[in-house]
Amino acid sequence: MSERVFHDWLSKRLARCNDTVIIGAGHDDCGHVDVSALQALAFSTDTVVEGTHFDAEADPLQVGYKAVAAALSDLAASGCRPLWGLIALNMRRGLGDRWAMRLMEGIVSCAQRYNLSIIGGDTTSAYGPTAINITVGGTPYGEAAVMRYGVEDGDLLVVTGELGGSILGKHMSPIPRFVEIEKLLELVPVKACMDITDGLTMDISRMLAAGNFGAILEEPEIPISEAAVKLAETSGKSAMEHALGDGEDFELLFAVSEESWEKLLLEWPGTGIKTRLSCIGRVENNQGLRVAGSDGTLKMLEVTGYEHNF
Amino acid sequence: MSERVFHDWLSKRLARCNDTVIIGAGHDDCGHVDVSALQALAFSTDTVVEGTHFDAEADPLQVGYKAVAAALSDLAASGCRPLWGLIALNMRRGLGDRWAMRLMEGIVSCAQRYNLSIIGGDTTSAYGPTAINITVGGTPYGEAAVMRYGVEDGDLLVVTGELGGSILGKHMSPIPRFVEIEKLLELVPVKACMDITDGLTMDISRMLAAGNFGAILEEPEIPISEAAVKLAETSGKSAMEHALGDGEDFELLFAVSEESWEKLLLEWPGTGIKTRLSCIGRVENNQGLRVAGSDGTLKMLEVTGYEHNF
Repeated sequence: MSERVFHDWLSKRLARCNDTVIIGAGHDDCGHVDVSALQALAFSTDTVVEGTHFDAEADPLQVGYKAVAAALSDLAASGCRPLWGLIALNMRRGLGDRWAMRLMEGIVSCAQRYNLSIIGGDTTSAYGPTAINITVGGTPYGEAAVMRYGVEDGDLLVVTGELGGSILGKHMSPIPRFVEIEKLLELVPVKACMDITDGLTMDISRMLAAGNFGAILEEPEIPISEAAVKLAETSGKSAMEHALGDGEDFELLFAVSEESWEKLLLEWPGTGIKTRLSCIGRVENNQGLRVAGSDGTLKMLEVTGYEHNF
Repeated sequence: MSERVFHDWLSKRLARCNDTVIIGAGHDDCGHVDVSALQALAFSTDTVVEGTHFDAEADPLQVGYKAVAAALSDLAASGCRPLWGLIALNMRRGLGDRWAMRLMEGIVSCAQRYNLSIIGGDTTSAYGPTAINITVGGTPYGEAAVMRYGVEDGDLLVVTGELGGSILGKHMSPIPRFVEIEKLLELVPVKACMDITDGLTMDISRMLAAGNFGAILEEPEIPISEAAVKLAETSGKSAMEHALGDGEDFELLFAVSEESWEKLLLEWPGTGIKTRLSCIGRVENNQGLRVAGSDGTLKMLEVTGYEHNF
């Protein structure tokens, strides 16, 4: 399939999802947007690679969906609503039209679901694994974006959803937590937030490292997913180890004051949002990550999670 | 080399090149910028792939430079100055630290040269060719961006620099034409502009297709590069064929009125900008691309240029 035919096919399927867009993808060297009504923007870029983030046998519809959702998850973690996306495909040569078009259907459907306008793209091909890179831009729901740093001594650490075992399925269909972060920001000040993509302990350690803090986690409060339990049956690891170390949960990890957490305990159930919130620990001035077991014993937690090496 | 070590190394080297940046790359899930003083933005994304856009033996410093310059060329073609860049690297596994760091030196040096702040990044690795994707954002020099469409019957087509044979060297060190477009916009209304990346005739046909126009090119006016002449000695093609069809020239192709061209003829030499401007043809209402030889004979021009196939 030629680049031009693909772009023509694509530009017919790209809806203009928000009124900031002047010129979307495929019409000009650049996509053009109007920001005269906006104050701040947030951007993130994320690549999913065949063999690492998806299998060669995966349904390209799901691959496309995942690529966009994974990138959007960073915007959600910054407390921002989606505006624009740019897509760079590096296709394994010989994949063929059907695969490419189904991939794009997945990309476009996820983009439209979250009102992300596709304003740019690039297509290359190579004798190697397919890689799909998505760059997203958005603007804060509230007055300012929420960042990864900002925690203080005594803050509580909270996560959305359940953790671990995403490799059994969830890693291909993450749900960026826009609904949750928008509502959280309405209810309380969120002092710091990030998404859990490289494993809970590694991501917590990053949030804490931004301010040289440590934390004590409460083991019984870690929300272990059913998938983590199932995976533990054959993996040789415990379900807790999966919940603490597995990548690609795409849940939010955020910090709030104790007072805010009490407010959330009261008001979250009334929001109608089904996503569970779990307070899993407390920030402390000592560096290092410790975990309190159900019997109250404290142990140092080894930081585990996924890192790319090259 | 681990992702984290690389990111730490990198974030120390990223200067804040413009005052819109709140949080640059490596500190948060997103990069954050302030757009309260801006009206419009333009974005583009561009990937260079080992084996297609650079050789495995190429100096990674040059590869990094090229990746950024190629992406920036789209901003220049839209009449926009650079603001922000996001870098997604998909590294061939086993490339090693020195290669990666030298690549980043190339990326960072080009970014700084053009005041592009790096506000985001992603690093993955795979058993396949290295791919470097750069997404750039910028804002118009003038009141509005210049787009690819906008030509009218009788407009003159002008190119910067010399064309063809870039494979002999220029393709690795393109110079985004920011200085030129900024000055052009000061002097005359630029009705349409794009950069020449897939070959002059293919890119002209794209500019014309946006409005269903055709053009007559003047063969003696096409600025043939020395590299095109040299390449023709061994390639089996003429130097003219190289100038008309070779990719990666990264020169500007733009349209102005006849009156504007007369003004440029008078005033361009006084600007101190050495880059040559050549008026290579005229837009006409008939579709199709024709070329007038030095003897005045007209022939239809076959559209040639580079397309990715997958």
